Amino acid sequence: MELLKNRILAEGRALSEQVLLVDSFLNHQVDVKLMKACGEEFARRFADAGITRVVTIEASGITPAAMTALTMDLPMVIMKKQVSSILKDGIIQTEVFSFTKNAPYLLTLKTDFIQPGDRVLLIDDFLANGEAAFGAIRLLEQAGARVAGIGAVIAKAFQPGIEKLRAAGYRVEALAPVSRMAEGVIEFL
Amino acid sequence: MELLKNRILAEGRALSEQVLLVDSFLNHQVDVKLMKACGEEFARRFADAGITRVVTIEASGITPAAMTALTMDLPMVIMKKQVSSILKDGIIQTEVFSFTKNAPYLLTLKTDFIQPGDRVLLIDDFLANGEAAFGAIRLLEQAGARVAGIGAVIAKAFQPGIEKLRAAGYRVEALAPVSRMAEGVIEFL
Repeated sequence: MELLKNRILAEGRALSEQVLLVDSFLNHQVDVKLMKACGEEFARRFADAGITRVVTIEASGITPAAMTALTMDLPMVIMKKQVSSILKDGIIQTEVFSFTKNAPYLLTLKTDFIQPGDRVLLIDDFLANGEAAFGAIRLLEQAGARVAGIGAVIAKAFQPGIEKLRAAGYRVEALAPVSRMAEGVIEFL
Repeated sequence: MELLKNRILAEGRALSEQVLLVDSFLNHQVDVKLMKACGEEFARRFADAGITRVVTIEASGITPAAMTALTMDLPMVIMKKQVSSILKDGIIQTEVFSFTKNAPYLLTLKTDFIQPGDRVLLIDDFLANGEAAFGAIRLLEQAGARVAGIGAVIAKAFQPGIEKLRAAGYRVEALAPVSRMAEGVIEFL
């Protein structure tokens, strides 16, 4: 998606070979019009996938997921990283390791909001090692849904997540697949 | 906002005099079209406030804030509840107590994304005790912005936040101001 790649080249900063800073338009300050364009692009790419529900993981995936759900006229479900005093009944959980936070968290889903037979489009801002995606897949499949598509705004394609997901049979679309980073260098596939 | 109040009456569940469960359309499963309508209503109510930026706190406020920012054609800024290995420079922080989680967190803002002179519209899903709103205000004012409006999708108007904010001079709009709850009972102002 050229609009997104150009924005990454203009404002993104490769802090190292692993870390891409895009907090001026994606995950701290958010360009909601760009996110709407991303949502429309996900809707276009997965138009033939029979999607019934858009799912994301809090928090940075919420805006692109919401714009995708809006375009596709589907409900969105936000998987939680923390339980609260309110969210404690009827939930399923799985442990996910976050490389960004360097700590595990309990990914949580209330099963009321996934129906057996649902065909889920899983949307997130980043795909890197695939830990979060595989955690979400475990819960969604446990709830009886099928993960019919995975959409990442940015994929660090040099990290193993995208290939592991495809090898496991999942359809993955990345709007900006980054092939290589170095300090000051960002290259796309 | 009648559309929202009717949805709360149809699907919301008052679990006690304090706890309102709206996770089927607001904060776990999300009806993005309803959130778009909420965003349009916030945009209408604050049309004369000279807003330059929409700000929210992760995670449940993101969808209504994004829809507000989309309608108003403004950038959104998401205040964080956790720092990461990436977000650590150029930040300001303040401690906020969460009654829902029964624990404090460090509300965090990268000052790059708030300009002195910004007129901020602060959007969140719930307004109850006002702890999060006052924390956000502390950071935004420290960064040189003025909080020109506060919008809550639902306000528990029987809790002190809304009156404390108004007493401090802030303009607050709640799309669904709840005046009283009891098990099975939800009443609006």
